[in-house]
Amino acid sequence: MEEKSSSKTRGKAIQCKAAVCRKPGERLVIEEITVSPPMAGEVRIKIICTSLCHSDITFWKMKDPPALFPRIFGHEAVGVVESVGEGVDEVTEGDIVIPTLISDCGECADCRSKKSNLCSKLPFNISPWMPRYESSRFTDLNGEVLYHFISVSSFSEYTVVDICNLTKIDPAIPPNRACLLSCGVSTGFGAAWRTAEVEEGSTVAIIGLGSIGLAVAEGARLCGAARIIGVDTNPNKFELGKKFGVTDFVNAGDCGNKSVSQVLNEMTGGGADYCFECVGSASLVHEAYACCRKGWGKTIVVGVDKPGSKLSLSSFEVLHSGKKLMGSLFGGLKPKTDIPILLERYKNKELQLDEFVTHEVQFEDINKAFDLLIEGECLRCVIWMGK
Amino acid sequence: MEEKSSSKTRGKAIQCKAAVCRKPGERLVIEEITVSPPMAGEVRIKIICTSLCHSDITFWKMKDPPALFPRIFGHEAVGVVESVGEGVDEVTEGDIVIPTLISDCGECADCRSKKSNLCSKLPFNISPWMPRYESSRFTDLNGEVLYHFISVSSFSEYTVVDICNLTKIDPAIPPNRACLLSCGVSTGFGAAWRTAEVEEGSTVAIIGLGSIGLAVAEGARLCGAARIIGVDTNPNKFELGKKFGVTDFVNAGDCGNKSVSQVLNEMTGGGADYCFECVGSASLVHEAYACCRKGWGKTIVVGVDKPGSKLSLSSFEVLHSGKKLMGSLFGGLKPKTDIPILLERYKNKELQLDEFVTHEVQFEDINKAFDLLIEGECLRCVIWMGK
Ligand SMILES: [Zn+2]
Ligand SMILES: [Zn+2]
Ligand SMILES: [Zn+2]
Ligand SMILES: [Zn+2]
Repeated sequence: MEEKSSSKTRGKAIQCKAAVCRKPGERLVIEEITVSPPMAGEVRIKIICTSLCHSDITFWKMKDPPALFPRIFGHEAVGVVESVGEGVDEVTEGDIVIPTLISDCGECADCRSKKSNLCSKLPFNISPWMPRYESSRFTDLNGEVLYHFISVSSFSEYTVVDICNLTKIDPAIPPNRACLLSCGVSTGFGAAWRTAEVEEGSTVAIIGLGSIGLAVAEGARLCGAARIIGVDTNPNKFELGKKFGVTDFVNAGDCGNKSVSQVLNEMTGGGADYCFECVGSASLVHEAYACCRKGWGKTIVVGVDKPGSKLSLSSFEVLHSGKKLMGSLFGGLKPKTDIPILLERYKNKELQLDEFVTHEVQFEDINKAFDLLIEGECLRCVIWMGK
Repeated sequence: MEEKSSSKTRGKAIQCKAAVCRKPGERLVIEEITVSPPMAGEVRIKIICTSLCHSDITFWKMKDPPALFPRIFGHEAVGVVESVGEGVDEVTEGDIVIPTLISDCGECADCRSKKSNLCSKLPFNISPWMPRYESSRFTDLNGEVLYHFISVSSFSEYTVVDICNLTKIDPAIPPNRACLLSCGVSTGFGAAWRTAEVEEGSTVAIIGLGSIGLAVAEGARLCGAARIIGVDTNPNKFELGKKFGVTDFVNAGDCGNKSVSQVLNEMTGGGADYCFECVGSASLVHEAYACCRKGWGKTIVVGVDKPGSKLSLSSFEVLHSGKKLMGSLFGGLKPKTDIPILLERYKNKELQLDEFVTHEVQFEDINKAFDLLIEGECLRCVIWMGK
């Protein structure tokens, strides 16, 4: 039925509802906007559901560039293809797709290499435009341009996404599960699976048990880690974490006169094989590095820190410890290859997704999703776009 | 003949000549010293030849702890076993051995793992003692203790080394070549081969073309790197570097208003696959990181910086660049496994060692070796201990 409605709108501007953020930190306002047809290489999709991720909140609150307003946030979603721009034959009207903040052109040196997931054709950035053109597909009813957000902007009934940022998925998968792979769960799961390549029987430490940290646990669990130590200031996270394989817990707010890394080094007899920083704090990266195992330990930076923040390590320790430091953007996953693998593992009841969805709201209540995520007990709040 | 002489001294203290450093930065003085017999797990060796490495100079100049005096420096050497302590059966009197600053016990978790070369039984440190005991085997003729240096102390006719820090080698290999594998060439070669795992056809940048940097080039060359870019402030290093596979040169003192990383990024169209920092400067590690290829680039810290120096990286870049940072102590090599492999490659005329030896002096001229290395045109000066 989606196909039928789309045939009527193909090639034309669509007027629809979007949740627009006009000023940093202010409640989103659902407005009527105009969404232009997709340009060459682009796809216009009707969002089925979207969920809120911490990066939306980070950029929603941010007052200075690269923050820009008015903007349409949202980057975790599932949609149905309404129409495609010139030259797009990978998807067709009616296909179910997942947009991703990183692209996967399949042709550049990075996409052809097994070692990189950072496409060079449309490199990830936080520009306010569509990735292939310096322009927006959104205007408000006064004709003012509304800015895009990390190539997705899913807080709108319709959005335009580059074909390089879309992965076609099995339509049988519930959209309120599939959408989690659009950013958060992929990022955490991939960090353990692809970036760290967690080995069977190993010990993993995860600093920050938000949904990304729990997705790291889920990834480590499926890689066969023997011990998964969660670190958080909220002790309720331990019970939650157990569902995703967390075996031990350190309350970061209750380490006495010891640092988190001291406690972890003692617990593990010399450090964890893999330490994931999922909070987004340079000083916690330092702690993670300090408690990963000499000789082979890997510290993986997953959390997004403030722009401009600096990470400081001792040169002596870097040289003498044999530890490795690496970052993980989108979990090191190549979206078009790896999202279908993860969805298949969900269908096979290996990968847990249901447990991440703690709340669901209708589009008109989108601001409630912000409140819930900020309060800290919510993992993922799915926002349904309605019929 | 070495065996015969040793049988007379076995179990007894030996009086012999050593080059003792009594104060930081002062010329070494050749003195008569007493070398105790090896304790359990130790081996006393007669040094055949030794060579001077930059770390000797660093600790020779250093005024504050971990510097300690009077001390016997030297850690690149070849020797012959004079006698063995209790429980040592891996080598016997007359065997030719290479001492190494790192140990290889073969039994601990690190030695058993393929991923680490940082033995946990006798971890590398710069303590003034033998690694297994808090004691010295050296005294001067007044009975004053002389300190050891990184488990080797080869600037002495006789020294005592733990069996874990000794590798038995093929006696057919000239000692003034084999000794280079005791530290410098192994460190550089291994950094390319074992730590970075340089791939065929890749692009390598090496900051600092001293003997360690040139050994990195030699390692990269034998790994099949297509392009090896040397960076140094001394343009004479390019001609020298060509012998070891350096294909391109950047004069770090002549980059105009560009940084070294800008020049390298332009030359390589986005960065080298592997960047080695071989100078020992935190700011150059930063430059190396800035010009390694996004997506898969590895920055390998090989140079030894001042204790306490801090390395600063942008959190954003670590997270978003896909680059990896790692250190390489002793090139990531396991001495007892990898030194024999390198010596075999030397015998097969693959690995070049002859070219590293630019000077040779007799033991009584050991201070000249310091002058030569400090002047900067010397790669390795071999010091012969005489009969
Ligand atoms: Zn690409
Ligand atoms: Zn996200
Ligand atoms: Zn060991
Ligand atoms: Zn050395």
